[in-house]
Amino acid sequence: MPSGGSCWRGEQLSLLAKYLHARQSCSQFEELIQAAKAEFKNDSDLSELDSSEILERRKNIELLEQDLSRQKSLDSELVVHLAKAKAEGYDLWQQARNDNNFQTFAPALRKLIQLRKEQSRQLAEGSSDWETLAQPFEPGLTISRLQELFAPLRNRLPELIEATSNRRNHSSCNWDLCEKSQSDLCDLLLKSWGRDLNVTAIARSPHPFSITLGPKDFRLTTRIVKGQPLSCFLATAHEWGHSLYEQGLPSQTHQWFSWPLSQATSMAVHESQSLFWENRVARSHAFSQKFWPYFAQAGAPVNSGLDLWKIMNPLTPGLNRVEADELSYGIHILIRTDLEIALIDMDMSVDDLPHEWNHRYSDLLGLNPKNDVEGCLQDVHWSEGMFGYFPSYLIGHLISAQFTDAMKIELRKQGMEETDPVEECISNGQESMLLAWLRKQVHPHGRLMNAEELVEHVTGKPLSSKAFLNYLEAKLYKLQGIS
Amino acid sequence: MPSGGSCWRGEQLSLLAKYLHARQSCSQFEELIQAAKAEFKNDSDLSELDSSEILERRKNIELLEQDLSRQKSLDSELVVHLAKAKAEGYDLWQQARNDNNFQTFAPALRKLIQLRKEQSRQLAEGSSDWETLAQPFEPGLTISRLQELFAPLRNRLPELIEATSNRRNHSSCNWDLCEKSQSDLCDLLLKSWGRDLNVTAIARSPHPFSITLGPKDFRLTTRIVKGQPLSCFLATAHEWGHSLYEQGLPSQTHQWFSWPLSQATSMAVHESQSLFWENRVARSHAFSQKFWPYFAQAGAPVNSGLDLWKIMNPLTPGLNRVEADELSYGIHILIRTDLEIALIDMDMSVDDLPHEWNHRYSDLLGLNPKNDVEGCLQDVHWSEGMFGYFPSYLIGHLISAQFTDAMKIELRKQGMEETDPVEECISNGQESMLLAWLRKQVHPHGRLMNAEELVEHVTGKPLSSKAFLNYLEAKLYKLQGIS
Repeated sequence: MPSGGSCWRGEQLSLLAKYLHARQSCSQFEELIQAAKAEFKNDSDLSELDSSEILERRKNIELLEQDLSRQKSLDSELVVHLAKAKAEGYDLWQQARNDNNFQTFAPALRKLIQLRKEQSRQLAEGSSDWETLAQPFEPGLTISRLQELFAPLRNRLPELIEATSNRRNHSSCNWDLCEKSQSDLCDLLLKSWGRDLNVTAIARSPHPFSITLGPKDFRLTTRIVKGQPLSCFLATAHEWGHSLYEQGLPSQTHQWFSWPLSQATSMAVHESQSLFWENRVARSHAFSQKFWPYFAQAGAPVNSGLDLWKIMNPLTPGLNRVEADELSYGIHILIRTDLEIALIDMDMSVDDLPHEWNHRYSDLLGLNPKNDVEGCLQDVHWSEGMFGYFPSYLIGHLISAQFTDAMKIELRKQGMEETDPVEECISNGQESMLLAWLRKQVHPHGRLMNAEELVEHVTGKPLSSKAFLNYLEAKLYKLQGIS
Repeated sequence: MPSGGSCWRGEQLSLLAKYLHARQSCSQFEELIQAAKAEFKNDSDLSELDSSEILERRKNIELLEQDLSRQKSLDSELVVHLAKAKAEGYDLWQQARNDNNFQTFAPALRKLIQLRKEQSRQLAEGSSDWETLAQPFEPGLTISRLQELFAPLRNRLPELIEATSNRRNHSSCNWDLCEKSQSDLCDLLLKSWGRDLNVTAIARSPHPFSITLGPKDFRLTTRIVKGQPLSCFLATAHEWGHSLYEQGLPSQTHQWFSWPLSQATSMAVHESQSLFWENRVARSHAFSQKFWPYFAQAGAPVNSGLDLWKIMNPLTPGLNRVEADELSYGIHILIRTDLEIALIDMDMSVDDLPHEWNHRYSDLLGLNPKNDVEGCLQDVHWSEGMFGYFPSYLIGHLISAQFTDAMKIELRKQGMEETDPVEECISNGQESMLLAWLRKQVHPHGRLMNAEELVEHVTGKPLSSKAFLNYLEAKLYKLQGIS
C-alpha cells in the first residue's frame, strides 16, 4: 500500500471491525449456538458417536459460546475506536521511525493503552488488564505462572550469554547470495521437507508471515535482506513450520475450517512449531552437514558442514529482537514482557518507555541503543495495540524444546540412534518422521487443549524452562568445543 | 493462490456476490436514493450551486437509480449461480489449457452462456442479450453502431497487414535483459512521467493489471517475461495509463471515491488511456530517440533511437492477442466480437467454437493455431462469463487516436511544432503537457458522459475509425520508409 492509502484503509478496517463485531455478537448467532447446544443434548444419535467425537462437539460449542460472550460484552463504539486507533497507531509508528522521534508515536500509544484497558474492563474476566488482553493469544495464561516459567531464564540466560563473550564473531557477514540463488535454496529446502505445491503458495513481503486462507490454501511469505544471505532461508524454514501446524489442524470435512476446534490453540504453540523447523532442523549440525554443498554451489564461502553450521548459529547479542540468536532471544522477550505489564497493569508512563527500555538493554545485554528506532520503536506490535503477545515467542521456545525431547524418546523406540535421533532423521533425509510425530501428537488437537494442557498431554510433564535451558547449554558446549 | 484453494475461494465469491446483490438491491438503499432525490428537488441551496454542480448531483442520483434498478431486476439465486459458474469456469478453463482439451471447458462455457442469457432476460433492457451484457463495459453500445465503427477496419486492416508482409521480422528476440535492469528501466520511465510515490505502488503478478483501492491508493502490477525484454516495460507504460485515468477521475472530497460519477465511464475510454501512454508515447520515435541510451546501458543491443524504435514496433501478425502489434490487434478483436455475438445472440453451438475460431484466423491473418491453447482457449474472459468486453479494446484504439488528434490541435495552439507536437513534447521531456491535456479534457468527467458522448465533447466529432486508420497508415509509411 502506498502511504497515501492508509487513511481510507483505516476507515475500511473500522467499518469491517464494526460489522464483524455486530455479526459475532448478534442474537441470531446466539440463537444458533443455543439451538446447537440443545440439539447436542437431545441428540439420540449421540450414542453412535465415540467419546472423542462427543468431546469435540462439546468443545466446539463451548468455544463458540466463549467467543460470543466476549463479543457481547464489548461496546460497539469501543470496537470502532480501537480499529481506528490501531490504524492511526500504525501510521504514527511508521512516521516516528522515519523521523526517529518517539514523541510522534507517544500520544497514539497512550490512546491505545487507554482503549485496551477499557476493553479489558468491559470483558470483566476477573483477571488483571494485561492478563485479559493476553488471553486471545495464550488462553489460561496468568502473570504469576509466566513469572514462574521465566524465572529460571532470567537467572540463567545472562550467565550463558556471558559465557560466550570470548568467542563472539562481531564481524558482520561479508558475503551475500543473489536473489535467484536464495530463492532456489528455499525451494530446495521445502521440496526436501515434502511441500505439496497444490495447497501451498509462496510470495515475498516486507515482513515474512504465514497465513491460511482456506482448507486447502496455505500461503507463506519470505523476504530477501541485503547482506544477510541466510535471512530468507531461515525465515522460510520458520514460516513453513507455522504453515505445517495449520496444515495439520483437524479438518474432517472442509466446513471444519470455520470451527473453533480447527484453529491453532495458542501463539506459543504456533511458535513452537516454527521454531522447531527453524532451530531444531534447519540450524542443526546434521542439516548443515547435508545441505552445505548447495550453499557452496550457490556461491557461499563454506567448505564443510561445520562452516555452514557455525554461520547458521551466530552467538552475538544485538539490539534487534528479530535478528537475535537463540541465546539472547529470551532477553528481548523478558524486557518487552516486563515493560508491557508495567504499562498496562502498573501505570508506568508512556513517556518513560524509551528510558526504561534502554536501561534494561544496558543491564541485561550490556548494549545501548543509539536511538529509539533501534530501541523501543523496533517492533510493530504495540503500534497496533497488541499487548500480551510477546511472551508467546519465548514460551514457544520452551514448548519446542519440551516437544523435541518427547519426540526423541519416541524416535528411539522406533530404532533411531540413542544420542540424537532427531539429527539422525535429518541426516537420513527422514524429516518426514519428525513431521509424522508432530502430525500425530501436536497438530490434530486444535483448540481442544490450551498450550499448557497440550504440553502435559504430549510430554507427560508440566511446561517448564528445563528442556530449553538444557538444549541451549548442550548447543553452546558443542559450539564452544568446536571453536 | 495454490490450485487447491479454488473450491473454497469459489464458495467465498458466491457468498460475497449474494451479500453484495442483497445490499445493492435492498429497500433501505432504495429509500436512501429516494430521499436524496427528494432532497435534491426541494433543496433551497440549489440556487447556490452552479449549473455544473447541479448536473453532477443529478447524474450521480440517476446512475445510482440505474444501478439499483438493474440489481433489483436480478434474482438472487441467479446471482449465486453465476458466481459459482464463474469460479468453476475459470478452474476448468485452466484445466483445459493444461490438458490442451477444449472439451474439458465446453460444458462450463455452455452453462455460463445460458446463465448470462438468463441474466439478460431478467434485466429486460429491450436490447439483444449480447448488447445487454455489454452495457456495464460500454454504456449505450449497440451492435449496429459497433458494426458501423468496425466496418472500415474489417476492410482496411487486412490490406495494411498484407502491405507489411515483405518486411516482417519473423525471428524471435534473441536477447534479453535481467530482471533488475527491466525493473530499473520501468522505475526510470514512471519517474520521468511524474509518478507520485506516496499514492502509487507497483508489484508483480502473472497478468499485469491496474487497480484503485482508495482515493489515494493506486496500484499497478507488471510481469517479467523470459525472452521478451520489452514486455515488462510496455506493460508498465500501459498499466500506468490506466492508473493515470483513475488518478484523474473527479474526487472533490475523498467520499467521492464511492460515487458513480467518480468512476471510469467505459472500458474503451480506460483502454484509450492505457494505449495512449503505451503506443503514442512509449512506442513513439521521439521516445526511443530519448530513451535508447538507458536500454543500451542495461545491455540491449541498440545503438540508436532508430534501433530501439524498430524493436518497439514489430509488425508481425501472430496468433496471440496480448502479444499482437498495433496493426493486427484489431483483427483479434473482430474475430472475438463476431464469435461472441454468434454464441450469445445467434445460437452458435459451443462445440463449433474451435472450428469457427480457427477458420477465421486462417482467413483474416493467414495463420492456423496448432491447438486450442493457441486458439480459442487463449483468453481468460469467457472462462468467467465475461461477454461484451472484447470490443472495448478496439474501440479504445479508435478513441486514443481521436483524442491524440484533438490534443495535437491544442498543443499547436500552445506553440508546439506543426508536424507532430506530441512527439515534440516527448523529445523535450514535457510529457506533463500531454497529461495536463488529458487531466483537463478527458479524466474529470467520470461517468457524466458515456464513451461516445465524451469523444464528441472532447474532439467535436463523432467517434469513428478514421483517426486510428490514418495513424496506422502514417506509422507504417514511416516504418517502411526507414527499413
